[in-house]
Amino acid sequence: MLRAMARINEHYRKLQAGYLFPEIGRRVRAFAEANPDAAIIRLGIGDVTEPLAPAVVAALKEAADEMGTREGFHGYGPEQGYEFLRDAIVEHDYRARGVELDASEVFVSDGSKQDSGNIQEIFTTACRVAVTDPVYPVYVDSNVMAGRSGSAGAEGRYAGLLYLPATEENGFSPDPPDADVDLAYLCSPNNPTGSVMTREKLETWVRWARERDAVLIFDGAYDAFIQDPALPRSIYEVSGARACAIEMRSFSKRAGFTGVRCAYTVVPRELTGAAPDGERVALHGLWNRRQATKFNSVPYVIQRAAAAVYTPEGRKQTGEQVAFYMENARRLREGLGAAGFSVFGGEHAPYIWMRTPDGLSSWDFFDRLLSGSHVVGTPGAGFGSEGEGYLRLSAFNSRENVDEAIARVIRAFGRG
Amino acid sequence: MLRAMARINEHYRKLQAGYLFPEIGRRVRAFAEANPDAAIIRLGIGDVTEPLAPAVVAALKEAADEMGTREGFHGYGPEQGYEFLRDAIVEHDYRARGVELDASEVFVSDGSKQDSGNIQEIFTTACRVAVTDPVYPVYVDSNVMAGRSGSAGAEGRYAGLLYLPATEENGFSPDPPDADVDLAYLCSPNNPTGSVMTREKLETWVRWARERDAVLIFDGAYDAFIQDPALPRSIYEVSGARACAIEMRSFSKRAGFTGVRCAYTVVPRELTGAAPDGERVALHGLWNRRQATKFNSVPYVIQRAAAAVYTPEGRKQTGEQVAFYMENARRLREGLGAAGFSVFGGEHAPYIWMRTPDGLSSWDFFDRLLSGSHVVGTPGAGFGSEGEGYLRLSAFNSRENVDEAIARVIRAFGRG
Repeated sequence: MLRAMARINEHYRKLQAGYLFPEIGRRVRAFAEANPDAAIIRLGIGDVTEPLAPAVVAALKEAADEMGTREGFHGYGPEQGYEFLRDAIVEHDYRARGVELDASEVFVSDGSKQDSGNIQEIFTTACRVAVTDPVYPVYVDSNVMAGRSGSAGAEGRYAGLLYLPATEENGFSPDPPDADVDLAYLCSPNNPTGSVMTREKLETWVRWARERDAVLIFDGAYDAFIQDPALPRSIYEVSGARACAIEMRSFSKRAGFTGVRCAYTVVPRELTGAAPDGERVALHGLWNRRQATKFNSVPYVIQRAAAAVYTPEGRKQTGEQVAFYMENARRLREGLGAAGFSVFGGEHAPYIWMRTPDGLSSWDFFDRLLSGSHVVGTPGAGFGSEGEGYLRLSAFNSRENVDEAIARVIRAFGRG
Repeated sequence: MLRAMARINEHYRKLQAGYLFPEIGRRVRAFAEANPDAAIIRLGIGDVTEPLAPAVVAALKEAADEMGTREGFHGYGPEQGYEFLRDAIVEHDYRARGVELDASEVFVSDGSKQDSGNIQEIFTTACRVAVTDPVYPVYVDSNVMAGRSGSAGAEGRYAGLLYLPATEENGFSPDPPDADVDLAYLCSPNNPTGSVMTREKLETWVRWARERDAVLIFDGAYDAFIQDPALPRSIYEVSGARACAIEMRSFSKRAGFTGVRCAYTVVPRELTGAAPDGERVALHGLWNRRQATKFNSVPYVIQRAAAAVYTPEGRKQTGEQVAFYMENARRLREGLGAAGFSVFGGEHAPYIWMRTPDGLSSWDFFDRLLSGSHVVGTPGAGFGSEGEGYLRLSAFNSRENVDEAIARVIRAFGRG
């Protein structure tokens, strides 16, 4: 018998080659090299473009100075984050909207990507996972890596995961499935479709989760882009959600922190899962143990920078950034819509979900847009088979570039 | 049949309650509350105390200013870290010592705790793990969480893990086992014993790993404290290590980054593991996929701060910090040694490993030291059953506190 030592995690081999954004990067680089004079406008990867708010920069520098003094130096902090930041989060993101949370239920982290990738660790590998299609790839890949799926089929779906189609017919917001599910991942405002879940839709999901004893992983990384004050920004604005939902929020898009790295996850105290013997175990304790063992929280200076987002100046300045991007989104949505394209999202999200013209495939449209108009989008098919025939455009760019991109797309493909 | 949904990761229940440092914190807080006037000196948790070097503070502030400008703003960076930092690491930590690495083999991260906790993910859950005893708890706990062990026995050891006793007899540096092992965790300079692996010992381990097709996880977080230039600082200074070892290094202790968070892991290109079909798979690609999926690298401003450690001023200033702590270590070692205590380590590491006097248990000595001398150490038993009868003292404190702690310990327990 061959002694196969140092055996790898066999589930990694199921992962499909070429994560979406590296492939886009590859194609864009190849085009740019062949066409060095093309003025490429990137509305592909969802990265912000506005500089950090002055209040955030000032807080970063002040904290850096503190760290250079014996009295102000901060070494290891609490793995869950500093109280000053957890308290500010509770006060401004929750209490201000009528939601009561204890600060100890908030876990500061270095990103919702990390948290949404890691959260599956506290559940059994045997649990059954539901995701939407299209979907943010991290939810899927992290579960594939952990062994909760079989191999991918021809259409790119992994056996063993339950995919819920998000389509024009259901407003890109599927209803809960009539199937055994332990974990369901929801993202609202949605990446990639730009749709937003209504209060009624959230209530439907919470009711379903409580009936089934399922846990909702609610990714609200884009909550700051919600324009209608009546729409919930947190799933905890829905009664009963504390008993069935984990929520993730981020400073990445609301405050331009994609290169600064700060986010948080809320695990309510009363949320439980079942042990093999049937005993109910608080997920809060499990996540706390996971974070205390494998994480050391976010740099002190970064937590100070995040706290500055909640100061009066910070709120004003980051609010202006969000408004700026949302005006970009409005122009994309209305400009392309008026030109005859079918566009969705962009009202409460920085993403426009655009049906490809002439029945083109996502990647064909991507390639034509790049070569003909020098505009980069994200092929919807990269987010799942139901994304085929769509392209995601992001509102993160300068006004000038957004207007120019709209004009170029209309010139090349417009039917208006 | 009971439908048990939202089932938890059953392996978390095997974890022993009370991670070491929270328990120490609890006892110290209780004592401090009952004795508010006691001047407690903390040599327990291995946290640095000197402020950040001026070169590091300046780099942080400069990068913060950059982030406040449109031209200098940095959003998402490469998941593996910026080239400017990876290049500096290769140049100063490796090439300067005769080791050739490609910058693409370096993965920047937010901590060796994280990396040493996450690295097991790329290996099969069926693999067999060897650790030393005493051991840095993260190596063990992360493998227990992943299901690579049974339950803990009376002496705290988990079934299924192979423990290698690190004792006075073997200089706290065990030889490789004659047993089937896929993964072996090594830490040198060692936390908690303060011992350091010689070149010959490293060669023995590398030879063993290559013969057995095992992978060494080499944690070199304390390499900057090695005083003898002839001792290897990196396992890659040993021939053949590139084919069998993953190495972790950190800025935490060498540059006071415990609250700044920056480290890195090296995965050489030729290092492979076996897939179920026997095919050899490069671990570099697996770790890259893991990081690209579940990590977004370290804040831009922090990577700039880390790069400043390698500038002439940064090297001088952080070198002085290390020398300062090592003078503390010398005083602890020689002061306590002269007073009749059996002390180990502290020559190439910031930790002193002290045999408890009068055959006291680790926790009894801890309690007596706290209540009688108001000095906090770390009970050796907290690192494993072979740590029973020892206490770890850290050199991270002011000169005044270290001298005072030595005097107090000798007053209370000295036999000299």
